[in-house]
Amino acid sequence: MKKIGVILAGCGHIDGSEITEAVLTLLAIDKLNAQAIIIAPNANQHHVIDHLSKKEDAQARPRNILVESARIARGKIEDLAKIDHNQLDALVLPGGFGAAKNLCNFAFAGANAEVIPSVKNLLLKIHEAKKPIGGICISPAILSLVFGNKGVEVTVGDDPDTIATVEKMGAKHFIKKVTEVHVDKNLKIVTTPAYMHGNSRIHELAEGIEACVRAVINLC
Amino acid sequence: MKKIGVILAGCGHIDGSEITEAVLTLLAIDKLNAQAIIIAPNANQHHVIDHLSKKEDAQARPRNILVESARIARGKIEDLAKIDHNQLDALVLPGGFGAAKNLCNFAFAGANAEVIPSVKNLLLKIHEAKKPIGGICISPAILSLVFGNKGVEVTVGDDPDTIATVEKMGAKHFIKKVTEVHVDKNLKIVTTPAYMHGNSRIHELAEGIEACVRAVINLC
Repeated sequence: MKKIGVILAGCGHIDGSEITEAVLTLLAIDKLNAQAIIIAPNANQHHVIDHLSKKEDAQARPRNILVESARIARGKIEDLAKIDHNQLDALVLPGGFGAAKNLCNFAFAGANAEVIPSVKNLLLKIHEAKKPIGGICISPAILSLVFGNKGVEVTVGDDPDTIATVEKMGAKHFIKKVTEVHVDKNLKIVTTPAYMHGNSRIHELAEGIEACVRAVINLC
Repeated sequence: MKKIGVILAGCGHIDGSEITEAVLTLLAIDKLNAQAIIIAPNANQHHVIDHLSKKEDAQARPRNILVESARIARGKIEDLAKIDHNQLDALVLPGGFGAAKNLCNFAFAGANAEVIPSVKNLLLKIHEAKKPIGGICISPAILSLVFGNKGVEVTVGDDPDTIATVEKMGAKHFIKKVTEVHVDKNLKIVTTPAYMHGNSRIHELAEGIEACVRAVINLC
């Protein structure tokens, strides 16, 4: 059974992982008879957003990325920094603003963003070991930051500003629908837009995310 | 397009809605070409549990059920108290301890529990209008509290203590697997055990929850 690391970034699409994308990633891994190893950084979130008002909850006590991600994982989650890349056959990164606020600072710094060291290190080790990586929704921005110098091929949907930004990092961009994936066979990187197409229906998300996980597993 | 009310109870299986069950409910509703109307009470959760340590976070600021449920709903959620039952063709209640701690106090009072008035009132109105109701995981305990006096038929899986408790409320219990449902055709109530079978695989949960939603829609 292939072991697929799934990097979460909190619990909720504006300050953490996009919950639907995360659950559909775990569903696809299970359906395809692989095993999810859920991991997250043990650090505080950038901030807490009230998902009803969509405004920052400035009075909230800081929330920890690993602790909040454990809500999605039902507690079966490991500190990303303690994971040995040899334990994993592949990595998949669901989306949500947490990927762009907690795993890197893309949401604030765009093409000048930096990926947090523990995440960058794991991505580089997995890639050096010629293992595949999947990126969903906005997570291909992280992959563009790390692998832009190799001309990584990605999709982030069809938003012109986001496309221009990942191209600035060195990525080659391919417009894709929510049900589609782009596979960079050379670098073994698979991406799918998911909620980058914001009005998508959930069964369409499920189709695109399952196609992404399937392509990742096929590259293992 | 049938409008299916989905009652959430927070975001995380120990103090709110079980996230996987909630997402799989929304996926099934979408796949079956119905529309989810996501609703939750506008009140504070009973408490906040750290889902990594599984202990109460006594220092946490209170979290609001509607605000936390909005994380799952991506903000598309309504205050349950403001919903007119005429807007809905059916109701579905995903599980998680939030159903047993926030929508009623079953987790603490067992067979002597009470359902919060707004939820009880909506369940009674929907039932009086001869519309179907689905209960997932521990939510059939709520249905047993409200409809036990009518001898409602439910499944809560196979845990002897939970079975004994719902029977004490007047429910008739049927042992079912995670992929199965029990349909009370007379009362139009459909239940499925989901994570009451705690070691279930996610694709099995998806199968049982889709069967539950399908049976609810067929009863509309």
